[in-house]
Amino acid sequence: MSDERALRVAEAARSVGADWALLTSADAVCYATQHTGIIEWGVSPFAGGPSLAFVSADGSVVALLVNNIEEAGARRAGAGRVLTYVGLALGERSPVADRYRAAVRNALDELGVGGVVAVEAATLSAIVAEELAARGVTAVTIDTELDRVRSTKTAVEIERLRFAAEVVDAGQKAVLAAARPGRTELEIWADVRLAMEEVAGERVPVAGDLTSGVANTAAISGWPTGRVVQEGDPVLCDLGPRVNGYWGDSCNTLFIGGEPSAAFMKLYTTTQRSVEVILETLRPGIKAADFDRKVRSVFEDAGVNNPLHIGHGIGTGVHEWPRIVPDQDVTIQEGMVLMCEPGAYDPAVGGVRLEWMYLVTANGNEVLSGFPHTLR
Amino acid sequence: MSDERALRVAEAARSVGADWALLTSADAVCYATQHTGIIEWGVSPFAGGPSLAFVSADGSVVALLVNNIEEAGARRAGAGRVLTYVGLALGERSPVADRYRAAVRNALDELGVGGVVAVEAATLSAIVAEELAARGVTAVTIDTELDRVRSTKTAVEIERLRFAAEVVDAGQKAVLAAARPGRTELEIWADVRLAMEEVAGERVPVAGDLTSGVANTAAISGWPTGRVVQEGDPVLCDLGPRVNGYWGDSCNTLFIGGEPSAAFMKLYTTTQRSVEVILETLRPGIKAADFDRKVRSVFEDAGVNNPLHIGHGIGTGVHEWPRIVPDQDVTIQEGMVLMCEPGAYDPAVGGVRLEWMYLVTANGNEVLSGFPHTLR
Repeated sequence: MSDERALRVAEAARSVGADWALLTSADAVCYATQHTGIIEWGVSPFAGGPSLAFVSADGSVVALLVNNIEEAGARRAGAGRVLTYVGLALGERSPVADRYRAAVRNALDELGVGGVVAVEAATLSAIVAEELAARGVTAVTIDTELDRVRSTKTAVEIERLRFAAEVVDAGQKAVLAAARPGRTELEIWADVRLAMEEVAGERVPVAGDLTSGVANTAAISGWPTGRVVQEGDPVLCDLGPRVNGYWGDSCNTLFIGGEPSAAFMKLYTTTQRSVEVILETLRPGIKAADFDRKVRSVFEDAGVNNPLHIGHGIGTGVHEWPRIVPDQDVTIQEGMVLMCEPGAYDPAVGGVRLEWMYLVTANGNEVLSGFPHTLR
Repeated sequence: MSDERALRVAEAARSVGADWALLTSADAVCYATQHTGIIEWGVSPFAGGPSLAFVSADGSVVALLVNNIEEAGARRAGAGRVLTYVGLALGERSPVADRYRAAVRNALDELGVGGVVAVEAATLSAIVAEELAARGVTAVTIDTELDRVRSTKTAVEIERLRFAAEVVDAGQKAVLAAARPGRTELEIWADVRLAMEEVAGERVPVAGDLTSGVANTAAISGWPTGRVVQEGDPVLCDLGPRVNGYWGDSCNTLFIGGEPSAAFMKLYTTTQRSVEVILETLRPGIKAADFDRKVRSVFEDAGVNNPLHIGHGIGTGVHEWPRIVPDQDVTIQEGMVLMCEPGAYDPAVGGVRLEWMYLVTANGNEVLSGFPHTLR
């Protein structure tokens, strides 16, 4: 019996008339097979192309193609049938792309892939496309349908996302202790990252921001540098660790020492009010565009600048569909896990962002994040 | 006047009969354009395909296609002509792959790309391949020639690699202080990573290993976990940070408290002897296979197990050609920067690896690494 996620991939494949799904993005491969690829240092020099997940349209076949370096991890993950190729070995000097191509061909043969095959547009490699074409396969894109089936989470996924939220909580708790005048952003970041990795029990890739000072926080996003945090600085800490294949996310905004200006507090209290609106408004049945408008209007009414999306889905991808933006004509459903990250940004004052993870429940929402938004 | 690296890409394109090179791997794009893409959290959900570098066969045109998120960084890098597409914006809801495809088409039109185009086999995206085919372009692979021109470093590259080596040195110095009984691998890793990031002045992606204990170090590679380091543990620390587009690399092996066993010291002193052989042997004119044999024979003569390559090139890629392996029929040249990482591994005893960065000079070699290999 395949995992529910693989069955949903099969459903998406059927809905675009495909006999197979052949997935190439790391997040979709993880969704379909539970294999967590290595991403922290970019595309491996020992890969001839993306790792591949194959799912038959009836959901009965789930297979993964990875190089020998990722094989052990894939088997531990229980990633269905695991096929491999040699990415790194002492005696191998043929181009890795040639070995990859041969492995793709073998996989298509062994699994009997043919007919109509659903592929992901942005990450399909030319080698895979060529090998499909050589078999007379018709390729169709699955992106929109895959987004849809992934947007509501299975019970297993919600557990994974709860744990990712716990990891994030540890990071946000750590930043409150670590962000002191005289320390660099990088020093603070090291404490925060360690706090998350200790809860995760492993090294984790981290998306996000750690910025300090008026100009940097007003710039919305940025990575930590050697800048020394000073009294009177806002500090914006947006943490997105990937834990066992699932991303957590969150943002808190701190203020270091002394009293914030009235102008800064206007940004802050406006954003706090917008969070209250989220808590009151986010429920099944509301359209994303209407939800966006209700939250966004808090900023418009206050006359402060909020140029971003209000939110986005999260799962094996750090930004998933749906996006909470104007004119997004999708209905919010129970089981979606959404990041809501309202914020206010003023180059003369600084930036504020208050983000939590929200699970859409039968009657409203549950905040998965366990840390308070607090200035200090 | 194009940078020497772009001229070398043009040379590689000419040598495969191409009118243009169109590069798709992050490391080759960085080499050609000096644009350092974001890699720490995997393929961006806001990318419709890989960032692209275009270099004309006469080297006069160098252009880069990136999404709007990477645009500012690309312009700061002086990446030739910068073309962009919208990866993330409030009002964009068309599939990012569609926007990428349109941008690729526009770029090919604007730059007048046609005739024979040299591409990288492993990272070419199906969208780019399709758009090239639609123009009647003949695609040829450039991988082998690109490896060759990149294998000797320009003066600018050697400076970059020297700085990457300094960053690594700070990490190896930090591990000597940080690796104490009772601390977890993750705690040690946090100190090491911060030490490197402070010298780099920014967050850096890091490849490598931090393992402790007999079984884990004997396993050759592995990432830090919550394991508590104990008296009598070997600790293996392999650090590969990417600094401003160029990778550093290195490995040291420590021993925590007390006296190592005779069996461990046999692994260690054998590896030390192999480093002496590297220092004496690595020079222009020697064949990689002969160099590999001279170093590898130290282990064979001692009867200890060393199943890895002896080394590899480094630059914008963390593992570049040539590999130092048996039967590699390439002549070592002045200006190559090579990682040599001899080691000895025994499941009953532990693992030892002693790696430095070496610049091949006119008459021999210079160790770019500034840290000593030392057990404590």
